[in-house]
Amino acid sequence: MAESRIAEPQIGLFEAMYTARAIRRLKSDPVPNEIITKVLDAAIRAPSGSNNQNWVFIVVEDAAQRKKIADIYRKGGQLLQALYQNRERPAHMTEKQQARLLASATYLFEHMNDVPVILLAGLKVVPMAPPSGPVPPEIMGAMKTMQRLSGSSIYPAVQNIILACRAFGLGTVLTTIHAFFEDEVRGILDLPADIQTYALLPIGYPIDKFGPVKRIPVNQVAYLDRYGKNWPG
Amino acid sequence: MAESRIAEPQIGLFEAMYTARAIRRLKSDPVPNEIITKVLDAAIRAPSGSNNQNWVFIVVEDAAQRKKIADIYRKGGQLLQALYQNRERPAHMTEKQQARLLASATYLFEHMNDVPVILLAGLKVVPMAPPSGPVPPEIMGAMKTMQRLSGSSIYPAVQNIILACRAFGLGTVLTTIHAFFEDEVRGILDLPADIQTYALLPIGYPIDKFGPVKRIPVNQVAYLDRYGKNWPG
Repeated sequence: MAESRIAEPQIGLFEAMYTARAIRRLKSDPVPNEIITKVLDAAIRAPSGSNNQNWVFIVVEDAAQRKKIADIYRKGGQLLQALYQNRERPAHMTEKQQARLLASATYLFEHMNDVPVILLAGLKVVPMAPPSGPVPPEIMGAMKTMQRLSGSSIYPAVQNIILACRAFGLGTVLTTIHAFFEDEVRGILDLPADIQTYALLPIGYPIDKFGPVKRIPVNQVAYLDRYGKNWPG
Repeated sequence: MAESRIAEPQIGLFEAMYTARAIRRLKSDPVPNEIITKVLDAAIRAPSGSNNQNWVFIVVEDAAQRKKIADIYRKGGQLLQALYQNRERPAHMTEKQQARLLASATYLFEHMNDVPVILLAGLKVVPMAPPSGPVPPEIMGAMKTMQRLSGSSIYPAVQNIILACRAFGLGTVLTTIHAFFEDEVRGILDLPADIQTYALLPIGYPIDKFGPVKRIPVNQVAYLDRYGKNWPG
């Protein structure tokens, strides 16, 4: 049975991108490790800053470990609610769409420990080596900016994971709220102090169907030459 | 001539991921806007935090605008050199590989204003709405963590751009160093204060060939259940 699943999936790039919607309802059926290996092998084809490849992936399959991570995830969800409790609904979302997103997110909170694979993606911090002596202000500023840009070395790989999962018929969703309790996650996963996590992806066979992915159209989010001059396409 | 280029590209997902290497030597030949529209339409199929889609894309084609951005990019390169001047070569890279990367990066510094399309990807900051009154420390901590995680709402879209470019035979590379001079970029592109840029992608037809993308193997970067226990795959 597993063999046919492990066969090299034939799916077009655009089909994968257009149907890989966020999937939060997952079956507890196990996922063969050979498939996870192929998903990770696709992940690491993504770029990373200076081609450092300082990424780290932890595949959590052990039931006790999954339960601990699921508990953290739930706490993260409660904290997120507090952060955004006074925020209004985004203009592009109908009330029904928002209610559906909330129901699906709540389902994931309650079922995270039943998901067969929880994949954590992190980065090993590469220490900068600025000139010795007093650090000039523009270099100080740059070091601060690099914190904001640090995800450029891991989220492209995460997107490859999402697309490769889609190809293998696996559902997943990019989440980050576990990172509010990074120190606890570090303890559970034995992560050294120089590794920070950036994403948590629950992976399993989907209960619901894939795609299509609906979005605000390009001409409302893209501009030609300068902001405010709408992209003609 | 342009028509055949604009036809829907048939390329497998895995072929695209495995051959979309960073391309820094680009021809100055123009890229049809219809293709850029399709690339952006693929970009926005990526996920974003709470499905906010608060992304902004600026397609810079105007020669004077491109020159200004190229000047910023060069300054960013000089600053990066200062930041890392004392850093050792990563263990996974040979001296020859590092020299090749440097030569190719230098080429891009010198030719950025000849690249037909410079695509900037940014995010509109969604203000958090924490509980009124004194902010509890765990919420303060979470707000700080969110800065580090903010790229999760734009770099997946950037990876889709890289893959869609590959499908259309376009070369590109994910760069971030312009952001060291974010205020100057903001001035050039008329960006409002609540938009921050995260990526600069030069896009054009490649001088060299695509792929393959070589990487440190999965079993050296992935772990099972906890850090230190190597992934068996």
